[in-house]
Amino acid sequence: MPEFRQDPVTGRWVIIAPGRAIRPRQMSAPSIPAHREVCPFCAGNEALTPGEVWALRDPASQANTPGWTVRVVTNKYPALDDRGSEINRSDAFYRTAPALGVHEVIIESPDHLVNLNELDAEQFEKILRAYRARWLALALDRRWRYLMIYKNHGDRAGATLEHVHSQMIALPQVPPQAVEEINGVNQHFTVTGRCVYCDIIEHELTHGERLVAQSEYFVVLCPFAPRFGFETWILPRKHAAAFERTSDHELVALGRTLREVISMLNGLYDNAPFNYLLHSAHANLGSAERYHWHLEILPQLSRAAGFEWGSGMHMNSIAPEEAARLLRSATA
Amino acid sequence: MPEFRQDPVTGRWVIIAPGRAIRPRQMSAPSIPAHREVCPFCAGNEALTPGEVWALRDPASQANTPGWTVRVVTNKYPALDDRGSEINRSDAFYRTAPALGVHEVIIESPDHLVNLNELDAEQFEKILRAYRARWLALALDRRWRYLMIYKNHGDRAGATLEHVHSQMIALPQVPPQAVEEINGVNQHFTVTGRCVYCDIIEHELTHGERLVAQSEYFVVLCPFAPRFGFETWILPRKHAAAFERTSDHELVALGRTLREVISMLNGLYDNAPFNYLLHSAHANLGSAERYHWHLEILPQLSRAAGFEWGSGMHMNSIAPEEAARLLRSATA
Repeated sequence: MPEFRQDPVTGRWVIIAPGRAIRPRQMSAPSIPAHREVCPFCAGNEALTPGEVWALRDPASQANTPGWTVRVVTNKYPALDDRGSEINRSDAFYRTAPALGVHEVIIESPDHLVNLNELDAEQFEKILRAYRARWLALALDRRWRYLMIYKNHGDRAGATLEHVHSQMIALPQVPPQAVEEINGVNQHFTVTGRCVYCDIIEHELTHGERLVAQSEYFVVLCPFAPRFGFETWILPRKHAAAFERTSDHELVALGRTLREVISMLNGLYDNAPFNYLLHSAHANLGSAERYHWHLEILPQLSRAAGFEWGSGMHMNSIAPEEAARLLRSATA
Repeated sequence: MPEFRQDPVTGRWVIIAPGRAIRPRQMSAPSIPAHREVCPFCAGNEALTPGEVWALRDPASQANTPGWTVRVVTNKYPALDDRGSEINRSDAFYRTAPALGVHEVIIESPDHLVNLNELDAEQFEKILRAYRARWLALALDRRWRYLMIYKNHGDRAGATLEHVHSQMIALPQVPPQAVEEINGVNQHFTVTGRCVYCDIIEHELTHGERLVAQSEYFVVLCPFAPRFGFETWILPRKHAAAFERTSDHELVALGRTLREVISMLNGLYDNAPFNYLLHSAHANLGSAERYHWHLEILPQLSRAAGFEWGSGMHMNSIAPEEAARLLRSATA
């Protein structure tokens, strides 16, 4: 069973999840054939995953059988578990906590697709509907202090199975990256009375050099201080704290925008490896309405290395003005 | 020219170094032969690097010619530059700063070796003498607030050239990871009057389950809350703030210990990819004597992914008790 452990120097918490070491790794062992017979995410192989917690499926079909277009299951090798752990290694010096939480997998296609370019806009919308449905469901559980959806696409981005999928976690504590963002949002609000993300959008729409795309509902930009080359953010144009309150209409537009950004990136790098992550307010946090939800796309074209791990600071070889220019040109 | 940029939400600084995008990448382009004719780090190719700033060489030989065993040069594609940048993109909303600093490469062998197992204990000692010499030299410049030495070994660990080497940076600001450690050290000292690293050593020597090796001068352990599988720390057994004050005698022992740990890791994973980093007090910091220098070895057997980047928290599939047991068994 997984557990949280705290480093006695820095106070940082890590999740130790020994069960995950034994999970299958198609990506780093290319000799294993990645076809539908062995892929647990392919339609027909539903028995290879834990039972589904949500699915968009033909009403005539049964749960855990084919007939679905998007399917959500508990991660078979979870880093977090809603039953918690019985192990407690805490002593007078070290602290641990049960790794209580939820760890789900959103399977994004019944077919063995490995390139997101193969999904049409309608499928992107369905995936986002799955995200919204699971967010609404998990937000009801008062034990969770933080929710996050993320995708690992490609070996370099940490994917272990190639079939298109993303993951959702619910945590019993707010993680450091979120604390930093929330503190930043609150500080900017205290000083200026405005949302820092709204100010970023206004600034970028005015100057344009880091703007990648815009539509009625969304703005796509390369942030001023990106950690990764071609890092790109999608933000709702009008202030909106919570992703799960996105309307059907906006969800269609978001699907189109997300598909467009991934296709731009693939225009520059064939089936580019990337992570994306959905940051949104969580109702169980104070001052949640000040937050501005957004999706961060983090291409993994080079690697974090000793400098990044040792300093906590990132080096990036591509200025965001250049990245935005290249992404815009990849549309044409 | 590189520059620092600050994210307006979180306040984090990143280094944008566009020149590095064009540097040669032997590792991610395996079709490029990595032999001595094209390797800028091989003896005989001294003209392919910037001029040497330090070398351990035959007294009869000339600088920037063969005859050296360890050679230190300025990074040809520096992320930091001691002349600073003339670009300033700061405006009323965004902040930048010149990426003032030093970025050097320590070339660890005149021969085109790609596996550290091929270096003997004497060569390890020479490498450490280079580290100490450069540390002592760069510590004299009052512009630098933080020094760090790190190694990227293998493609998965972010190396772009395979010839054995490590890197040293001098920064004009203390980076977040160091701030966290220094705050932790100070807090523990305030509460207990003791060094938290000394307390860790005492605890681990008593319990033993995370202990990997020990000698007269050094303790090797897997930390209680490791970010990476097989993460291993080497610490001086007796409190010592500053690496650069390590005696010749201790340096010999450190070389032997470092070589032993890498060889244990290679016993488990052939030519394992890893980063290591040397964290030490910096004289330009307050309360520097409270710090306890150490070397962190971070194997890169799996990958940081969306969860880590989005949360700032790490998942690790291998408990440190198991990692220590496997490393100890790899000695035999």
